[in-house]
Amino acid sequence: MTTAKSSAATSSAANSSAGDSAPIVLLHGFWHGTWCWSPVLAALAGRERMATAVDMAGHGLNARRPAAALARPFDAEAFATEVSPVADVTLDAAGDLLVAQLKQIGGGRPCVLVAHSMGGVVATRAIQQAPELVAHVVYLTAFMPASGVPAVAYAQSDDNEGELVLPSLCADPVAVGALRLDPGSNDAAYRDVLRQAFYNDISPEQADAVIALLGCDAAAGIAVGTTELTADGWGSVPRTYVVCNRDNAIRPTLQRRFVAEADAAYPANPTTVIELDASHSPFLSMPDRVADIVTSR
Amino acid sequence: MTTAKSSAATSSAANSSAGDSAPIVLLHGFWHGTWCWSPVLAALAGRERMATAVDMAGHGLNARRPAAALARPFDAEAFATEVSPVADVTLDAAGDLLVAQLKQIGGGRPCVLVAHSMGGVVATRAIQQAPELVAHVVYLTAFMPASGVPAVAYAQSDDNEGELVLPSLCADPVAVGALRLDPGSNDAAYRDVLRQAFYNDISPEQADAVIALLGCDAAAGIAVGTTELTADGWGSVPRTYVVCNRDNAIRPTLQRRFVAEADAAYPANPTTVIELDASHSPFLSMPDRVADIVTSR
Repeated sequence: MTTAKSSAATSSAANSSAGDSAPIVLLHGFWHGTWCWSPVLAALAGRERMATAVDMAGHGLNARRPAAALARPFDAEAFATEVSPVADVTLDAAGDLLVAQLKQIGGGRPCVLVAHSMGGVVATRAIQQAPELVAHVVYLTAFMPASGVPAVAYAQSDDNEGELVLPSLCADPVAVGALRLDPGSNDAAYRDVLRQAFYNDISPEQADAVIALLGCDAAAGIAVGTTELTADGWGSVPRTYVVCNRDNAIRPTLQRRFVAEADAAYPANPTTVIELDASHSPFLSMPDRVADIVTSR
Repeated sequence: MTTAKSSAATSSAANSSAGDSAPIVLLHGFWHGTWCWSPVLAALAGRERMATAVDMAGHGLNARRPAAALARPFDAEAFATEVSPVADVTLDAAGDLLVAQLKQIGGGRPCVLVAHSMGGVVATRAIQQAPELVAHVVYLTAFMPASGVPAVAYAQSDDNEGELVLPSLCADPVAVGALRLDPGSNDAAYRDVLRQAFYNDISPEQADAVIALLGCDAAAGIAVGTTELTADGWGSVPRTYVVCNRDNAIRPTLQRRFVAEADAAYPANPTTVIELDASHSPFLSMPDRVADIVTSR
């Protein structure tokens, strides 16, 4: 593990030659979409770097909602039991989509890939599948699973104690095939848990705007999928991990475990670690800082 | 008016020298956000052009919803009467925000500005305010108001007969200060009108994903705001108008009126016109075509 002081990130030389003018591709986490990167994208454009956000499989313009999400009156029991329209979305499909997006955006050039939260699982799969497409990967408080380990095992582990996402689920993921939130809830306590889980360093008003854009269903298939990693595949691509110390979705202890496991598996390619005093969503609370980190890769 | 055949758009030489490597800034219309441009942005990145979408004032990450939008059970009467949290958003504020976004993204370089629908009103204001920031403007089936004329006057005019947006409003805009849609409606007939108004050339499933991302309130202040145009202001910036012939939000007759009025006012700077056999949302139904048009400016 190579530790970079937060303040030194913009001048970090590690691996920077590989990605200096590489297009940047930003992949959001579960329930989010391209929209969450808007402030970072504007900051990157101001730095004259090409950057594009993409929708994960089953998210954003690819999202599908259960009928119960629209029912009036709302029926919590139906919402808790209806099988998700994204129940058939797998990590295979999500990885294939990201590979296609990297090819389209990169046009043959390797990209700098930035992945947030569960986007890290998809990034890991895509990189193992096509390491030549990625010059550098930045895990922004993201799942960075070891070979053969599903994200769900990490999410439920003791290292993630105190996380507030799993308690926010409104349906059994095994039964409905999705991790289901209720962003349309008008329950003040529930909405507060969502804010604490994801957005505890922005204003409640801004958090409400963000919650209005969340999807309700994220495919369980992505969270239970696994990828077999190899030294000449995922292990060969330079990586940075941005630890967010106020994250209540992926706890800092778990974030550091990802780094420790990766560095143990691929000691010749250690992770560069940067720490932020941020919630799960630094792309909203400190977009310029995120842009600085990304452009220093 | 200079008419360019649709098929010739990619090789159009008109004004292309001014914007060849200019950063592209994409501004959505009412109720939408940066997310609607994702397919176009990916296509532009594949063409190695820097492009960034921005949120309009009171939209996307800046959106605010009335409490009635979240009420369970839903109360249509309350939804029809609650004053909007964006009732104080003016065209002045929206124009200022876009000017700031153009400065941030362009970093001093003039941008190619692409505006959709009501985004055209904001673009017109920003260009009049700071014409030096825009190398070329593309109105993509957008309001392109004449000097001193508010968008609402065009929307309600005979030239817009057959439009389906005003009949979709769920509240009196004068009373609540916003043009209010109900994207959370589970009424099949209402949802069908939204699809016909905006998305009649994509699949119903994709349209549902898009409708899930719409805000409910768009500031009436933007629709009633006016801008005094001058020859050395807005009139000096090269412009393209993309007429969408299947548009049920801004009818083709109205789109052509915008062009005729602009060309009558500024005959030395005629509009380049491109026609698409598209709905109100070609950024969803034909993103590669839109990317071709934008990169030819």
